[in-house]
Amino acid sequence: MKFSVQRTAFIKYLTDVQRAISSKVTLEILRNIKLDLFSDGLTLTGSNADISIETIISIADEDANLQIFEEGSVALPARFFSEIVKKLPADTITIETDPNRFITKITSGSTEFSINGVDPDSFPHLPEVGATQSLQIPSDILKQVINQTVMAVSKQESRPMLMGVHLIIQDGTLLAVATDSHRLSQRKIQLDSAKDANYNIIVPGKSLDELAKMLTDSSEEIEIQIAENQILFILGHTSFYSRLLEGNYPDTERLIPATSETQVEFNASELLKAIDRASLLSHAGRSNVVKLSIDVDKQTVMISSNSPEVGMVEEALEFTNLNGNSLEISFNPDYMKEALRSFGQTQTTLSFTMALRPFTLVPTESEGDFVQLITPMRTAN
Amino acid sequence: MKFSVQRTAFIKYLTDVQRAISSKVTLEILRNIKLDLFSDGLTLTGSNADISIETIISIADEDANLQIFEEGSVALPARFFSEIVKKLPADTITIETDPNRFITKITSGSTEFSINGVDPDSFPHLPEVGATQSLQIPSDILKQVINQTVMAVSKQESRPMLMGVHLIIQDGTLLAVATDSHRLSQRKIQLDSAKDANYNIIVPGKSLDELAKMLTDSSEEIEIQIAENQILFILGHTSFYSRLLEGNYPDTERLIPATSETQVEFNASELLKAIDRASLLSHAGRSNVVKLSIDVDKQTVMISSNSPEVGMVEEALEFTNLNGNSLEISFNPDYMKEALRSFGQTQTTLSFTMALRPFTLVPTESEGDFVQLITPMRTAN
Repeated sequence: MKFSVQRTAFIKYLTDVQRAISSKVTLEILRNIKLDLFSDGLTLTGSNADISIETIISIADEDANLQIFEEGSVALPARFFSEIVKKLPADTITIETDPNRFITKITSGSTEFSINGVDPDSFPHLPEVGATQSLQIPSDILKQVINQTVMAVSKQESRPMLMGVHLIIQDGTLLAVATDSHRLSQRKIQLDSAKDANYNIIVPGKSLDELAKMLTDSSEEIEIQIAENQILFILGHTSFYSRLLEGNYPDTERLIPATSETQVEFNASELLKAIDRASLLSHAGRSNVVKLSIDVDKQTVMISSNSPEVGMVEEALEFTNLNGNSLEISFNPDYMKEALRSFGQTQTTLSFTMALRPFTLVPTESEGDFVQLITPMRTAN
Repeated sequence: MKFSVQRTAFIKYLTDVQRAISSKVTLEILRNIKLDLFSDGLTLTGSNADISIETIISIADEDANLQIFEEGSVALPARFFSEIVKKLPADTITIETDPNRFITKITSGSTEFSINGVDPDSFPHLPEVGATQSLQIPSDILKQVINQTVMAVSKQESRPMLMGVHLIIQDGTLLAVATDSHRLSQRKIQLDSAKDANYNIIVPGKSLDELAKMLTDSSEEIEIQIAENQILFILGHTSFYSRLLEGNYPDTERLIPATSETQVEFNASELLKAIDRASLLSHAGRSNVVKLSIDVDKQTVMISSNSPEVGMVEEALEFTNLNGNSLEISFNPDYMKEALRSFGQTQTTLSFTMALRPFTLVPTESEGDFVQLITPMRTAN
């Protein structure tokens, strides 16, 4: 194998594939990146137990200016190889592998590295998705759906299926739900390309976290293919594979209250700052709880937290449209902060039923396509 | 105690004092910051075993707009207090302490914190320096002297005095030296304010690291007072105290070779990049060694590193003015990288005597006021 390539373009492709590569992986070969040089391009592949990423540098990519001298394959230690490429001195690098011993020469300017490679045949094959159907979704929308749900995914390995986002595709809509049983986030979108599609799958939260980092804020269409135990996202020249989680996701529809007794509207980012201040105190204390005190007659909303060992905090909140019954409710401020961060600068309506029943946050303008739910806490104060 | 102050100005003063405060300190009271409110200003004090910092917010500081309502003192948990101040909503904050129980109310906008303070009398007193003499040195020069020597300070607690920078002030010059016995850095400057001064002290490297972060790149004069076991730096409204290390610093003068057999000149930042590349390989291998091969007849300088388990690297270096004998010499690239970083963009002359003798790096233009020395390593390659 021998080729030359423009260094900065090559680094971009490398960076994408490296998202799949972890130094913590137990299977030694997966610490490597696989390079396959064909007559019309170079394929880079990285993988861990959950995710595989494959990207193709085509000879048609003018920025990359790929010059192919001799086809072939090799697997190279991923982190070491990428550090070398990043620090090489010249615009162009040349890579040449001895096909018998896999020793690989990397030259750029007057620098020559010679590093020990590995037989590429020992690298596991990518999963075959072989789906008959494919869906399309704009990159920016997919990124939003992921970022609005993935924070509610459970970190507890005791209930593995809660470590994923539940995706239900039917009747031309995509419903994404995640819950760790303390809070829940649900987002619904129209998906015109999915008129006849019918899927019910659980995608690991960690996979979606990595995918979101690769998604641009453009309307470029991302293709999705789903098979029995794999999902494949195609982003231009890059294929992102994730395994699916097995099991039946709990029925979350019934958790979201249909009616409420108290409603109040906030600017999401102002409320976030106030919760953030109150959480300074709750974090310093023993129990991480803040209290919202809503007085409909006086038209006041107070947030407070009290930890005898450190002190207390109280703040009058600004709001609009307070209706319904007065109420005191306590909750973990960190769940509220993560929920509010996903709303950005919008107006947000909080709806409550009772002090110990879950309450919801929705963007005031949303018409029900995005809802966050938080379970309150009992408190002695 | 009760005062109000402009919040962003107050944060700057707080940040300076917090450099002295460590959450790792064993003496509980030192996790606090002390506030003393007098008729003409507010003093903030922080301390750990090695460093104490005191800063005065004067009523004359218009940006701070300090309003004094009632004099008094309190000690407050430093990190918690500073996090609160940073996140408060309004431009002004008001702080009021109950003199009997030290509970302190912090108000800003519609937010009110009430936190548990501590008796300020339990806070240790600052050292009395009581020097009869003081020196002046411009802030940017002092910062440079520290940054050019402190990297060579030892991290090994086995020889505590090597954990400091040796300062010798005599005959109107300041000589600063640090060595960890593998490398040495020495900087000499004229100090006109020290014509009659005569000091020989060791200042802890960690203290100087913190001090350097507070020094600006301006020519503002810093005042220095030295007592038997303390040094005091006065930076405008802020006093920075450090304890001195006890013991006799080794005689380092004789370590610096007076003559050399081989000299070669590099651009410091280009050489740094090449060493950095070669160190990628030496770090991945078992022994962290790179080799410089100087051939005077061929007029070539090669850098290389070889670790059979990972591979090898070789690079032809650009240089000017190569004179003397040919030579092969091996060394730890990390010492060389730290030395070169302190040179910036200048031309740097490397001077060698023999393969196993220490070699020096000096800025080509320096006339001997800055020298770095590195001890080579034996290598099998």
